[in-house]
Amino acid sequence: MRAALVEAREAYESGEVPVGAVVVVGDRVVGRGHNQVEGLGDPTAHAEILAIGAASRSLKATRLTEASIYVTMEPCPMCAGAIVLARLSRLAYGCPDPKSGYCGSLGNIVDDPALNHRATVRSGVLEEECAALLSRFFADLRRRGTA
Amino acid sequence: MRAALVEAREAYESGEVPVGAVVVVGDRVVGRGHNQVEGLGDPTAHAEILAIGAASRSLKATRLTEASIYVTMEPCPMCAGAIVLARLSRLAYGCPDPKSGYCGSLGNIVDDPALNHRATVRSGVLEEECAALLSRFFADLRRRGTA
Repeated sequence: MRAALVEAREAYESGEVPVGAVVVVGDRVVGRGHNQVEGLGDPTAHAEILAIGAASRSLKATRLTEASIYVTMEPCPMCAGAIVLARLSRLAYGCPDPKSGYCGSLGNIVDDPALNHRATVRSGVLEEECAALLSRFFADLRRRGTA
Repeated sequence: MRAALVEAREAYESGEVPVGAVVVVGDRVVGRGHNQVEGLGDPTAHAEILAIGAASRSLKATRLTEASIYVTMEPCPMCAGAIVLARLSRLAYGCPDPKSGYCGSLGNIVDDPALNHRATVRSGVLEEECAALLSRFFADLRRRGTA
């Protein structure tokens, strides 16, 4: 999760909602990504989508069954669906997202018995650090909005 | 949907599961995509994700509130989530996907009151043509598998 936090800080420095993700096999990071919705001008450019794409290209595989993903915030429905499509074995996330999290908060796409793959989930990994970065970002926004 | 079927046929010719999508504003197609999971070596390279990315770049906007998306097959959870993130007003799809469709079949991410956006859905648009292309693709696969 430390590596995912490094990614999240990169997003923060670029003025993006600070979420980062890494895909890991054993001890090795095989894909990294941070939120680039504004930078790429693409609402699908979430950290997880970019990290999964990078990992697939790096491993030359579209099924990442040996890999885990670490994300600083609970994935949304799109990213939860991407985790299932990539057949990632395990998801670890930092802080929950009560507004659009779909890995426990509003629903759970990564543990839906109707789908053809399920990932195990661990939540609350370095939760305070992950949440603090998001709080700082939104506090900055509010300050600028009222400046 | 005719334009989405043209995209789906491109996927078929490339040996990909034949699904196509177009994003439309009024009468104008502003983004096109077809499934390129194998070609791009990326499990997230679904028709809808590529069409939404193309539309966002073309319109220089990450919120496509005036736009509709036409897809030949019911979107999966990832693509349904992308439709919500892109704030698309309307989804029309061809045939249902009983195995992973999440716009009515196994669940409904595009009409979830807990999320911050909902799209109206019309299903069964040119359903037979959309389904026939998929059936032909899977029949080809089976024939090759037993040849």
